[in-house]
Amino acid sequence: MKDLAPYIERIEKKLNELELPTKPVKLYDPLRYFLQIGGKRIRPALVILGQKLFSPSASEAYPQALSIELFHNFTLIHDDIMDNAPLRRGQQTVHEKWNSNIGILSGDALLIKAYQKLAEGAGERLESLMEVFNSTALQVCEGQQMDMDFEERIDVTISEYIEMIRLKTSVLLGGALEIGAIMADASDAHRRAIRQFGENIGIAFQIKDDILDLYADPDKFGKQVGGDVIANKKTMLFLSALSVAGGPQLEVLKQLLEETNIELKLKRTKELFDHLNVRDMCHERMDDHYKRALNALDTIDVADQNKTALRSLAQYLIERDL
Amino acid sequence: MKDLAPYIERIEKKLNELELPTKPVKLYDPLRYFLQIGGKRIRPALVILGQKLFSPSASEAYPQALSIELFHNFTLIHDDIMDNAPLRRGQQTVHEKWNSNIGILSGDALLIKAYQKLAEGAGERLESLMEVFNSTALQVCEGQQMDMDFEERIDVTISEYIEMIRLKTSVLLGGALEIGAIMADASDAHRRAIRQFGENIGIAFQIKDDILDLYADPDKFGKQVGGDVIANKKTMLFLSALSVAGGPQLEVLKQLLEETNIELKLKRTKELFDHLNVRDMCHERMDDHYKRALNALDTIDVADQNKTALRSLAQYLIERDL
Repeated sequence: MKDLAPYIERIEKKLNELELPTKPVKLYDPLRYFLQIGGKRIRPALVILGQKLFSPSASEAYPQALSIELFHNFTLIHDDIMDNAPLRRGQQTVHEKWNSNIGILSGDALLIKAYQKLAEGAGERLESLMEVFNSTALQVCEGQQMDMDFEERIDVTISEYIEMIRLKTSVLLGGALEIGAIMADASDAHRRAIRQFGENIGIAFQIKDDILDLYADPDKFGKQVGGDVIANKKTMLFLSALSVAGGPQLEVLKQLLEETNIELKLKRTKELFDHLNVRDMCHERMDDHYKRALNALDTIDVADQNKTALRSLAQYLIERDL
Repeated sequence: MKDLAPYIERIEKKLNELELPTKPVKLYDPLRYFLQIGGKRIRPALVILGQKLFSPSASEAYPQALSIELFHNFTLIHDDIMDNAPLRRGQQTVHEKWNSNIGILSGDALLIKAYQKLAEGAGERLESLMEVFNSTALQVCEGQQMDMDFEERIDVTISEYIEMIRLKTSVLLGGALEIGAIMADASDAHRRAIRQFGENIGIAFQIKDDILDLYADPDKFGKQVGGDVIANKKTMLFLSALSVAGGPQLEVLKQLLEETNIELKLKRTKELFDHLNVRDMCHERMDDHYKRALNALDTIDVADQNKTALRSLAQYLIERDL
């Protein structure tokens, strides 16, 4: 991860320097606020890593990196409204601090700013950048809609779930890398391969997220352990349990969704998951996507040292404790 | 207006043919629905007129025209949520027919589709198109925020109001024309002039809208006469009255905002507006912007016959009864 640190520092600086008008105050203040409550800035860093993979000496494509980060924040502002979430990274969400209308409109403005940054210094690459950005952005919307659809269903299959997280989370990692690759004038085959790497890392990353929810070390984990269980979220853990549970276990699983005693609900759910070996099932899937990602990276014929940063980032994302 | 009819027909056809995926159903069905409940399609027609002004024989830039119409519909879907409006063109709004979350997300997807269309066949013009589209789109957001801010204020000045409608409504007409001009490879000076024409026509159009709300012929007007008065909207009529009302009249004006008897409220407001000559004040402002528009058009050195369609459209927009 230390390979990334200088890029992330620079991205943070560029974000702080982002020019936003002062008026109307209620349009732009929420954006200034939200962009400064933090975030890991992994996605914009992927733009730079995607570029450096193919063109190590090129000057970094920070406008395009920022574009991806602005887009990501736009989705967070709107998702938080849809999910009725009061907090993000421990801070008030935009619609909570102001109101929903301001969340909608400032989110819209942020998406437009993302397009402005995408075009900055793009030159002849703009057409390719727009193709990738637009199809990625639409897929992210599709993933969010699938996620909302799933809330009303109990019969979600694992492959439907993987497709949902691919769209909602992973295509943006793939898209960020591909946008970096475009800025390095990479070939179509190289662009496809790096996108594959990103999408599979993204899926592995999300499965890891699902596992950590219940199996994280509470001392290291930044948020409430079992939050997904409490919220009855259909995570990879839950759906894996659903896929192997026999008749009586299925009944227990469904009853646990109704359980109002939180402590009991967490304890029993964990017991059932442990009994069904759900954690191992999820780890296997995660490893499968991790391997696919590394295989995709292997097909790219550039000097192996160019791949080091991406390999260590991938490893970090699936080995992290939080 | 008959000059426009063939273009509008074609735009309608292209909108019907717009390729939208089927799934997720709740993401794309609302868009199909909303795009087909109609609209005058003036804005996309302006793209074509802006193009034909400078390049009469060029094949029409329908993708860019559609882009503007998609963008406009995106703003309507989101504005309807913010305004809590149940109806649009006599039909249910998206958030009313589905829900707010679906309105937010399908609106987002529509904005992205607008960018996709903008890039279609743009070639080397894409960079200029993006510049105009992005700055226009941001200004529209700023105008919407100002409009919302004004709801909470009584002391809005006429010049603030004009700036608000310029941003919320007019820049999109100017932007549509300029995008057409870009597709015709017009010079920078020509682009500026046609944008000036569009912005001023847009302001005149909106003032006309405000006047019609109270002074339309009820038999010809498609909606409730006095709707803005009932909703206590700070229109050009109201703000003009506010700007000239003396002490006692000011009191009456403020009292009328509280009046709950609708019939009485409409009658008394109209009496006060008539007494203060508010309608003439608004007509003068409208004519002023109409003339500025025509002056801007006059500065453009192309064959006069190329300007006929724009002149008659401008005339129609300020002389219309509905």
